[in-house]
Amino acid sequence: MKNIHADIITIGDELLYGQITDTNSQWISAELDKIGIRTKRKSSVSDKKEDIMEILAEAEKRSDIILITGGLGPTNDDITKKVLADYFKCELVLHEEALKDVTELFSRRGRELTELNRGQAFLPTACTYIPNRSGTAPGMWFEKNGKIFMSMPGVPYEMKDLMTQSVLPALKEYFKTPVIIHQLVKTTGIGESNLADLIKDWETQLPKVIKLAYLPSLGEVKLRLTASGENVDQLKIAINNELEKLRPIISDYIFGYTDESLEKILGDFLRSKKLTLATAESCTGGYLSHLFTSIPGSSDYFKGGIIAYHNEIKTNFLDVPEEDLLKYGAVSENAVTKMAEAVRLKMNTNIGVAVSGIAGPGGGTPEKPVGTVWMAYNDSRKTVTKKVILSTKREENIRMAAYSVLELIRKSI
Amino acid sequence: MKNIHADIITIGDELLYGQITDTNSQWISAELDKIGIRTKRKSSVSDKKEDIMEILAEAEKRSDIILITGGLGPTNDDITKKVLADYFKCELVLHEEALKDVTELFSRRGRELTELNRGQAFLPTACTYIPNRSGTAPGMWFEKNGKIFMSMPGVPYEMKDLMTQSVLPALKEYFKTPVIIHQLVKTTGIGESNLADLIKDWETQLPKVIKLAYLPSLGEVKLRLTASGENVDQLKIAINNELEKLRPIISDYIFGYTDESLEKILGDFLRSKKLTLATAESCTGGYLSHLFTSIPGSSDYFKGGIIAYHNEIKTNFLDVPEEDLLKYGAVSENAVTKMAEAVRLKMNTNIGVAVSGIAGPGGGTPEKPVGTVWMAYNDSRKTVTKKVILSTKREENIRMAAYSVLELIRKSI
Repeated sequence: MKNIHADIITIGDELLYGQITDTNSQWISAELDKIGIRTKRKSSVSDKKEDIMEILAEAEKRSDIILITGGLGPTNDDITKKVLADYFKCELVLHEEALKDVTELFSRRGRELTELNRGQAFLPTACTYIPNRSGTAPGMWFEKNGKIFMSMPGVPYEMKDLMTQSVLPALKEYFKTPVIIHQLVKTTGIGESNLADLIKDWETQLPKVIKLAYLPSLGEVKLRLTASGENVDQLKIAINNELEKLRPIISDYIFGYTDESLEKILGDFLRSKKLTLATAESCTGGYLSHLFTSIPGSSDYFKGGIIAYHNEIKTNFLDVPEEDLLKYGAVSENAVTKMAEAVRLKMNTNIGVAVSGIAGPGGGTPEKPVGTVWMAYNDSRKTVTKKVILSTKREENIRMAAYSVLELIRKSI
Repeated sequence: MKNIHADIITIGDELLYGQITDTNSQWISAELDKIGIRTKRKSSVSDKKEDIMEILAEAEKRSDIILITGGLGPTNDDITKKVLADYFKCELVLHEEALKDVTELFSRRGRELTELNRGQAFLPTACTYIPNRSGTAPGMWFEKNGKIFMSMPGVPYEMKDLMTQSVLPALKEYFKTPVIIHQLVKTTGIGESNLADLIKDWETQLPKVIKLAYLPSLGEVKLRLTASGENVDQLKIAINNELEKLRPIISDYIFGYTDESLEKILGDFLRSKKLTLATAESCTGGYLSHLFTSIPGSSDYFKGGIIAYHNEIKTNFLDVPEEDLLKYGAVSENAVTKMAEAVRLKMNTNIGVAVSGIAGPGGGTPEKPVGTVWMAYNDSRKTVTKKVILSTKREENIRMAAYSVLELIRKSI
């Protein structure tokens, strides 16, 4: 089967001046990849007619699908719609359905439709109107010689809504893309190259129909198995066969099979077992608790935490004796063990965790360099401790230390 | 003077598959903007020869400067260097100085130079070698008909180091860019459109030599005044004149004149006054403390915090009586007032702050909808409280609530 190629075009002066990061094109290309469409080029251009006309012509030559975001606001500096009308040599006319939708959106928000926003219901006659349920800028679908142009607003959640609800299904249908099945395997506690070494033999024997991708991010490496073909049941069987072989090789590191984060998976587990947790943080300074509490409903299992940045707080709130701090230091197995147990008992939870380390850039010594982190897990039956040496970068150390604690909890409960 | 235009090209399959976000091109375009060079186009292409050749030719037509990142690794899938040699119709030969530099880098890291990494010292004869002090992939500078091509590694900190140390100064020199002076004015506690309204008259009377940009981000709006011309002293005077006029109009909202964050500026202030601070967080769940502790040296003034997620913790650790929680609720002026004072007294600090709100998506009521947040500042002389109603989105509420507390501290100390 011939490859289907896409060009992604993001439009806006603010992208060219470096005022904002374009996250739309990454999200779009990842979604296209999932349905077997290959992104050939990503481009950002300014809100200038000649620049937009130029990239449209280039993209049309190269790709089957041209996805465009941005430049659809009601103000004069947003010109994408006018340029599209010129590109497709047609007029802008009032679209009754678009007008009805934008009027309704305003009345839901308790506002009168302004003349400026009424203008948003004018569309190029060459396009098919694709309703945008979460904003005032309509989606526009153009067909030309078997190629598709789709213009969407630049606001990420509006664009994502349009893509998910309308554009991706329509592209699948239009280009009759093959059936594609993905299976994620999320791992933590092992780096990308070590993981690759470990599963080398398994990877070599994978059938041609299955492709493997390594998707590393901070604290985890995601494996993605992709099978594409005609028959969905056969593909599912093929994926499951490989999963069965893979599981025993890396069972120590697998924490999930969906795109949920480790803090979400741990939280769901704690809730299902009716367990509660409290944190005692030094070097992570609140970031570990933030990971837990960023999950909706985390109050079901997360009761609270002590951020014991100063040693005085470790002593007064978490019962780490001053003489211990002098003898072993605040970054020690002794300190985190006492902190984890104290926070569990004082906050009356099933589990207490503690973390203390040298985030840097200052504070390192030859024995305890920057990046040294001690952590402890404690429940009524046991204490598990772990020491890691991370990087020299403060921000990375804070994040990695917090993820290491999540990993310690996962292995200990 | 004629505008100098740049194309920024990022190379790598992982960009086209949507596996990583390209942050390089934003950083580069922002730096170019500061020296008066306009980015005309940003493009991402895969590690395929024909795709790279195509974009190079397009960019050469359009721009004076072509900045390229990525595809310079030692492995076979990285082909940028070979393609550049083809594009400039020259050979790759061993570059003695590059070999010396990469050998030294390896020996500093206590490792032997591998054959693969030795290959990184082969450079196209058409280029000028630009040393990369923080990695093994060399920078390459090409000149062709008055246009500059510069190839850099994709690793952000290596690229930034090369740009700052070598490329930006060389471009300024080569293109004799005008003198440009920037002055930031950082504001918080006011939205972009209200700020624009407030300074409308001042903005209208700005001399032509000064341009104004609004750079909004979560919790703040940055104003950037840019003056460009020939004479640096005159420009400085012009900027200062306008700053003097602007200051009284928005003095309530200004918190800084450099690119430092509010948490950094507050931290420096606390240190200089030898003041200490403790936090009592409910809805922000550790994020407020994380903002403080992400700053190196924050242990000078940040002693610790209590994350009182569960009401039991608010009562047992922060002395909010159970009957108060029943009567006023946990999201109330009563609760945050008691929490802020208790954490200050118990952690023995000069300042205590507290925040309690409904982050959502659940937990809202008609009287206290999702996004309702109460916060308090307390020192030995006074308590200041504030209520805000933020958004319906959990993540945004957590972040905005934390920034609102920083803003409350700024106004109260």
